[in-house]
Amino acid sequence: MTALLDFVAELPLVDHHCHGVRISGLDRLGFEQLLTEADTVSPLGTSLFDSLIGLAVRERCAPLLDLPKHVPADEYLQRRAELGAAEVNRRFLRGTGITDYLLDGGFLPESLTATPEFAELSAARAHDIVRLEQVAEDVFRAGTTGAGFAADFAAELDRRTATAVGVKSVAAYRVGLELSGDRPGPSEVTAAAGRQLARGEPFRLADEVLHRHLIWAGLDRRLPVQFHVGYGDSDVDLHRCDPLRLTGFLRATRDLGVPVLLLHNYPFHRNAAYLAQVFEHVFADVGLITHNAGLRAPAILAETLELAPFGKLLFSTDAFGLAELYHLGAALFRQGLSDFLRAGLAADALSEVDAVRLAALAGHENATRIYRL
Amino acid sequence: MTALLDFVAELPLVDHHCHGVRISGLDRLGFEQLLTEADTVSPLGTSLFDSLIGLAVRERCAPLLDLPKHVPADEYLQRRAELGAAEVNRRFLRGTGITDYLLDGGFLPESLTATPEFAELSAARAHDIVRLEQVAEDVFRAGTTGAGFAADFAAELDRRTATAVGVKSVAAYRVGLELSGDRPGPSEVTAAAGRQLARGEPFRLADEVLHRHLIWAGLDRRLPVQFHVGYGDSDVDLHRCDPLRLTGFLRATRDLGVPVLLLHNYPFHRNAAYLAQVFEHVFADVGLITHNAGLRAPAILAETLELAPFGKLLFSTDAFGLAELYHLGAALFRQGLSDFLRAGLAADALSEVDAVRLAALAGHENATRIYRL
Amino acid sequence: MTALLDFVAELPLVDHHCHGVRISGLDRLGFEQLLTEADTVSPLGTSLFDSLIGLAVRERCAPLLDLPKHVPADEYLQRRAELGAAEVNRRFLRGTGITDYLLDGGFLPESLTATPEFAELSAARAHDIVRLEQVAEDVFRAGTTGAGFAADFAAELDRRTATAVGVKSVAAYRVGLELSGDRPGPSEVTAAAGRQLARGEPFRLADEVLHRHLIWAGLDRRLPVQFHVGYGDSDVDLHRCDPLRLTGFLRATRDLGVPVLLLHNYPFHRNAAYLAQVFEHVFADVGLITHNAGLRAPAILAETLELAPFGKLLFSTDAFGLAELYHLGAALFRQGLSDFLRAGLAADALSEVDAVRLAALAGHENATRIYRL
Repeated sequence: MTALLDFVAELPLVDHHCHGVRISGLDRLGFEQLLTEADTVSPLGTSLFDSLIGLAVRERCAPLLDLPKHVPADEYLQRRAELGAAEVNRRFLRGTGITDYLLDGGFLPESLTATPEFAELSAARAHDIVRLEQVAEDVFRAGTTGAGFAADFAAELDRRTATAVGVKSVAAYRVGLELSGDRPGPSEVTAAAGRQLARGEPFRLADEVLHRHLIWAGLDRRLPVQFHVGYGDSDVDLHRCDPLRLTGFLRATRDLGVPVLLLHNYPFHRNAAYLAQVFEHVFADVGLITHNAGLRAPAILAETLELAPFGKLLFSTDAFGLAELYHLGAALFRQGLSDFLRAGLAADALSEVDAVRLAALAGHENATRIYRL
Repeated sequence: MTALLDFVAELPLVDHHCHGVRISGLDRLGFEQLLTEADTVSPLGTSLFDSLIGLAVRERCAPLLDLPKHVPADEYLQRRAELGAAEVNRRFLRGTGITDYLLDGGFLPESLTATPEFAELSAARAHDIVRLEQVAEDVFRAGTTGAGFAADFAAELDRRTATAVGVKSVAAYRVGLELSGDRPGPSEVTAAAGRQLARGEPFRLADEVLHRHLIWAGLDRRLPVQFHVGYGDSDVDLHRCDPLRLTGFLRATRDLGVPVLLLHNYPFHRNAAYLAQVFEHVFADVGLITHNAGLRAPAILAETLELAPFGKLLFSTDAFGLAELYHLGAALFRQGLSDFLRAGLAADALSEVDAVRLAALAGHENATRIYRL
Repeated sequence: MTALLDFVAELPLVDHHCHGVRISGLDRLGFEQLLTEADTVSPLGTSLFDSLIGLAVRERCAPLLDLPKHVPADEYLQRRAELGAAEVNRRFLRGTGITDYLLDGGFLPESLTATPEFAELSAARAHDIVRLEQVAEDVFRAGTTGAGFAADFAAELDRRTATAVGVKSVAAYRVGLELSGDRPGPSEVTAAAGRQLARGEPFRLADEVLHRHLIWAGLDRRLPVQFHVGYGDSDVDLHRCDPLRLTGFLRATRDLGVPVLLLHNYPFHRNAAYLAQVFEHVFADVGLITHNAGLRAPAILAETLELAPFGKLLFSTDAFGLAELYHLGAALFRQGLSDFLRAGLAADALSEVDAVRLAALAGHENATRIYRL
């Protein structure tokens, strides 16, 4: 890691995938539970602060709370509590250089800020990404029938996407990414909705036909479709979330001209980069792992750039709940981009004009173009 | 990336897998279509020049056309047109330091140079690799029967391999690499050939039994058998092309003493390196990704060398159509080998005598030995 | 690779997974056969000394035999023979800085030292890890019945684990890692044991139900359970040994509070690191590949640390037979840890106090805590 290139340090960023932030305070356990994808601290292991993201918090976040780098975790948390959640959130969110946040509000919304509140807190623009499965589950909960589901869902999706800039599928978490390329026919959807109703509360969607129907609804509306891919918490079957499993689906949808965004992707980021190269409508990011990997984030970004064209790479934090994660996601993305470009410049493998242009593509231009911000 | 070690800069290379070059000129779209594995430029993305291979063309190819490094793409293409395809091809092909090219002429042969023409153009030796599936498809097209296929194919293969140095299978593209270790029996082949005839024109082979029969025909002739593995265009189901899927086949064929060559392998190059270590007859390269990954090529070669013995690593470009790709493939392989050895020498992890010897193995000695050139 | 940090050079190590060492001498073929995971030297390839581990032997082991670095392989082997196996073993084993060796004595025990002999030779503590499948196979060989197997196995396992610190499963080698999360019921075990008896000599276990029963027997005894994962010899189907296949099993066992140790993991080490992050009871190492990858070992350790908390990373050599491998495993683990921490210190990404503490966790504290040494 070297000092940031000036034009990367000042690069405006569009965070094309993140979530709201927690308003309430957090004790040590609560903080560690939000820090990584582990559900909680292990009685068999040691603190989650003893990992690259923990070191990154103490290195890169402590100064924003007026503390020296590498301050012990307990002192960090004490100062955090002292300042209060509102001030902490403001400090971290306003220093990111992110001009636009695209928020997926579909997971645990009751514990997090909503979009307008987030815009206010971050002094930036905030846009909605609609989580498809949440819409469908709400439709089931509100009461529908097998035969009526498609129309009810369509109406509700229209309502919720009226001001949204894209949709997102969490099929990866529910059935994996082995999705057929075919659009499911009306009778298949009716049958699947009937099965879902028969399963009853809480109507948690996990049916390949229904996920597929939802995704096609997004494609029909020509809204960019985001897919959770790869890295996530212990609830995901990671071996079913290799983006290569989407190959058939991507082949079937390439001619529509609707962007498909592969989120996170680690440890399959090279596979995602391959898809972003060979399919015209596919884009990729390395959100979530960027802040988790701390000082290793630049290495992961570099692997992604082996095949991903700069016109197909986006920035996201996938920050959730903890204000530190927006800051770290942005700072470590800048670090990775800067290190990569600096090494290329040092080897005379590209010109500075190129470096500035490519950084702008990944930092904000691709997202602005794709989501028509 | 550091300056090349002298003995790597001057190392004669055998390119054990490439294709012919285009004779006719190319406009910008045509050039970008041949540049990477993307079929075409995306209206949603930006230019394919904005990727590591695009930067590598402007860095490493421009000087051979008398242009400064990093010249804009349009100026590069204008100069290329001005010089004409024949002169451009000559300049790139004669500066590679490749003494022998092993050409797979089985894909789109009508648009590319044939082997003798290629030898003339490159002022080097050119040898034939016979694409097994092409031979079989020609036999079907020429007219055969289910029962007659095996003999007709054998006769045609004998004719075409009379002066060839090896054969190649593209089973990966058609059925994936999950091939059984068993040699198919005569009745299985007859039945499979019958099914293929029933499918009719264009007789595109995609039948696990037939691919396997073809491969065994190569093994019977004791010709080195190349496999497409991993990275390719959007037509490949990459998740079915992990070389580990060949494990059963490799276990079944190890005692024959016939070399099996795993081509490309990215992003499964570490898996291929493992197979090259544990199976006596397995060899691997990282062609195709070497020029695609530009300044990241050295990192990929280094990962491959974690397990692949130097006696099992080969050089290839997998260049197709575009003269720049032979030049880049050779230059970036040298860069990767040199960076790797230079770092080892700097750490005193090997002697210079070793470095020279190991470079020669990978650069040409292994290929010369395996293909009996 | 840079000079070792002092506190890493002097770090006491616990080798939580290795095997016994050969007492008898070795000719060149015998040495090469033990050097890597290849069964033997290939007549088609060149010497296995021409690989990173071969270079590492000549660089890092030669000085312990009073030879200059990079001495040719034949001179190295001649000096080795001259000193005799006993002296060679003593020199390598006593210089590792390993205080405790955890020995899996279940593979080819007749050719290797037993645990007490190993303790004497290494002047360190040596502990037993019981290979579950070996116990079961011995029970079948000694004579049992389908219905009697569970009790006979339980009694024998109690006897053998009386002084052991953990158990190990090689299910990966036999049926792959796609293990169900359910504990098999008594009737399933009886039926599976009956099938195994029907198969007869040599009673080589390869039955998903039986492997699972064995593993649950270890969990019931609250003994840490080691799993072979990933890299191994040509007998393994590597594509069935991705640790992600254990996800369901890990989800089903996380609440027991019994440690599960994923061994080796390469080339799936990032996947193992993910599991170590998200599951409270999961720990990982990169043994076996550490010495095989020679100067690339630091790169592999760095990838593992992207997600694995320092409290979940262990050290092992997985050395087998060849005294050099204990030395190389320890030396290259130190090299990787030191390089990683040195780079972090240089970037001011962690403090020296942290670096010392994290090194101790991985070097010995985690193992001491997990195995209650």
